[in-house]
Amino acid sequence: MTKIEGVMQQIKAQILQRQLTAGARIPSVRQYALQHGCSVSTVVEAYARLVSAGILESRIGAGYFICPPSIASALLSEHTIEYRREVDPLWISRQSLDAPAHMLKPGCGWLPKEWMPEQALRKALKMAAKADSSLLLDYSIPHGHVELRRYIARKREVCDIMLTLKQILVSDSATQSIDLIFRHLLKAGDTVIIDDPCYFNFRALIQAHGLNCIAVPFGKNGPEIEAFKQAMHYQPKLYLTNSGIHNPTGAVLSMQTAFEIAKIAEKNGLYIIEDEIFSDFEYVPAPRYLTLLGLKQVIQIGSFTKTLSAAIRCGYIIAQEEMIDQLIDLNIATHFNTSHLNAEIIYQALIDSSYLRHIEWLKKQLQKTMSETVKKLAVLGIYPVILPKAGIFLWCQLPVHIDAAKLSQLCLDKGIILAPGNSFSQSKNAAQFIRFNAAQCIDKKVFDVLAAALNELHLRAAV
Amino acid sequence: MTKIEGVMQQIKAQILQRQLTAGARIPSVRQYALQHGCSVSTVVEAYARLVSAGILESRIGAGYFICPPSIASALLSEHTIEYRREVDPLWISRQSLDAPAHMLKPGCGWLPKEWMPEQALRKALKMAAKADSSLLLDYSIPHGHVELRRYIARKREVCDIMLTLKQILVSDSATQSIDLIFRHLLKAGDTVIIDDPCYFNFRALIQAHGLNCIAVPFGKNGPEIEAFKQAMHYQPKLYLTNSGIHNPTGAVLSMQTAFEIAKIAEKNGLYIIEDEIFSDFEYVPAPRYLTLLGLKQVIQIGSFTKTLSAAIRCGYIIAQEEMIDQLIDLNIATHFNTSHLNAEIIYQALIDSSYLRHIEWLKKQLQKTMSETVKKLAVLGIYPVILPKAGIFLWCQLPVHIDAAKLSQLCLDKGIILAPGNSFSQSKNAAQFIRFNAAQCIDKKVFDVLAAALNELHLRAAV
Repeated sequence: MTKIEGVMQQIKAQILQRQLTAGARIPSVRQYALQHGCSVSTVVEAYARLVSAGILESRIGAGYFICPPSIASALLSEHTIEYRREVDPLWISRQSLDAPAHMLKPGCGWLPKEWMPEQALRKALKMAAKADSSLLLDYSIPHGHVELRRYIARKREVCDIMLTLKQILVSDSATQSIDLIFRHLLKAGDTVIIDDPCYFNFRALIQAHGLNCIAVPFGKNGPEIEAFKQAMHYQPKLYLTNSGIHNPTGAVLSMQTAFEIAKIAEKNGLYIIEDEIFSDFEYVPAPRYLTLLGLKQVIQIGSFTKTLSAAIRCGYIIAQEEMIDQLIDLNIATHFNTSHLNAEIIYQALIDSSYLRHIEWLKKQLQKTMSETVKKLAVLGIYPVILPKAGIFLWCQLPVHIDAAKLSQLCLDKGIILAPGNSFSQSKNAAQFIRFNAAQCIDKKVFDVLAAALNELHLRAAV
Repeated sequence: MTKIEGVMQQIKAQILQRQLTAGARIPSVRQYALQHGCSVSTVVEAYARLVSAGILESRIGAGYFICPPSIASALLSEHTIEYRREVDPLWISRQSLDAPAHMLKPGCGWLPKEWMPEQALRKALKMAAKADSSLLLDYSIPHGHVELRRYIARKREVCDIMLTLKQILVSDSATQSIDLIFRHLLKAGDTVIIDDPCYFNFRALIQAHGLNCIAVPFGKNGPEIEAFKQAMHYQPKLYLTNSGIHNPTGAVLSMQTAFEIAKIAEKNGLYIIEDEIFSDFEYVPAPRYLTLLGLKQVIQIGSFTKTLSAAIRCGYIIAQEEMIDQLIDLNIATHFNTSHLNAEIIYQALIDSSYLRHIEWLKKQLQKTMSETVKKLAVLGIYPVILPKAGIFLWCQLPVHIDAAKLSQLCLDKGIILAPGNSFSQSKNAAQFIRFNAAQCIDKKVFDVLAAALNELHLRAAV
């Protein structure tokens, strides 16, 4: 914290503690500087910022005053959240994103911030602060950050995928990538295939586009082939899935299944969107549809949210050059441009020599936490359906008679946000399932609250 | 540039100049450090980054080598752009965004980077590099950056608009704001009203949504009232316009026109989206529909692109709390989250005490450039339809027989990107008009090329 921020914090704290109330005059710049032993220029800047922020007002010739309550009280009012809704595809997102800092989030889809490469990002930000001015000020070229695209192309070579830079579009996020592709390829009423269960936000996105969807059961080797074949009767346009590590099940596509699905897709001209978002957690890369079918039918998307930062939005789309060109038109119409600075920060953090070490550390850490979490859940009678080889998720079955939605509501009241199974399930046959994020299950309180809530539900069932 | 970047640049330059070719072995870390008088650790880090970036490869025990041409040549291939298309609503955007640095862009919609507050942004970035880790790593709460919302609310008080923080949503851009609102309020086939002429990207956005649109002639006091009234027969759902300073005409809504349009909107339950993007350039705030009609019917959107940075994407939506809540669901489904870090950097730059001075400087600079540009255009027989009170645009009529699209194509070949009138006009009756961005008209070459192109077109017409 700089000295200027120190002064700002002190005044804000006094307002929050009601030592300073609306209309109160605060010390002059000179007085404040004298009283707190800081320089006049520090206080001038701090006051000026508090004026800009609407916390102080300056009356000419009279000094500085605390603003009326309408503004100042807003300082206090933000973090009281009353958010109740049915368990729908957006339930987990809204709960997790709105949650005050003290709540625990074994249901959320991201890593704790202590696990993220904070120093590498700070370094990248410092570099950005000194970067060429066009990185700070100008729009990006429509395809996005050149070096980041080269990095993305390079990474694909491991899977025998050779890309040109014009087959890559830098976007704002994995979600926005899918959204753009949906807008380009589909219209309301079209049919798509998703996995059952699948990432809940895929379902929210499909709802937002007014699409019909067929959910194909997803087992430990991938989608059920027979059901996938049956789904072709409905003439689906597109299949949306995770590549590498599946969310929420943690399962990995087998080569045989990949081959069978690829053949069906090829025969039926079905597009496949592969979401690469968890690919950095893989030990051994699972088969990719892109390797089998190429860019004629497969589009890869992803982001850096899971391993670098959720605060710096940056994603990508890999598709044929012509499709990328059309997606750019759509991106200009609906977003105009993608954040050039974000791409630069992400790129610098990715090529920092610490990044690969960080990923190795993360993977080990996850493996350890995963096996500890499995043990702790077993004590409560909660068992994973699959023991994942990698990743962050455990897809678990609850004890008989326990409904995941009820359990989640009970736990929410005790400050724990869970991820009930039906948020992930189009067929709603996952009422007895729940997804745990192992990295968010370190705190003993998660299991204490779970135990108490399970007890209460067992008692209710017994009555 | 840091020492590490220096080493990277040097090696990249050698590849570009073909002094180093694919497969070539480069000096060992120690040799390089010795030869160039830099530290071993600098070279280690530079080499590691070049490996991550796919430019070098490391072979254990053998040293570092330049990667095969597929990758290394990509270094060269990016900036050759062949982009030809009809003049459509996206023409100007694609030309301007794709343009190599040496091209001049009097047709683009942004200020030259030399006019942007570079130092304030660098300072904000340095502060961000030291900020609380959650700002760097975590998702934002769904409404977005609290202090930025308070700043936005505070600014509205000048126009007698009192807002709560829950009536504001931080978004990624002004364009994304409109896109979200369209998705929430409209469906394909619905009818909307736009100005004729209007910002070309409004037309691209309307096309992307499959909406019908009625273009109401926009004069020097705002939309033509009689035409606006007639448009009600088509039961439009929404009217999209610029508040403050109109793009492309530079006109300002008069109080009488605002009142008449507001009455028509009220009677017909018509939503109005006011785009505040040029509001910081106003000397005297023009009437706002939001002041007259309130949040029941009016939604304000905007961003900080024009006065702070185009590279740091950040916008906002002001609407009723319930609508904001629904827009948040839609934002999660389609974007998941908004960039928290961008909002923080923008906020810090806004409350920096230099920001207001910067705006004052910008306004004076624009006024000066505007009047100089008017004079230089007059010499060529090009005259503004309105002499704008503020802002960056001059909407000009060309000499008789001169077609703006043809003129633009001719100038494009000479390295000048113009903004032909029909890109802005739904009715296509602006073939003889053109928009100039005064701030991008400093270079004499703009007028030389224009003069030569006009001559050529005059000659062609005479044949």
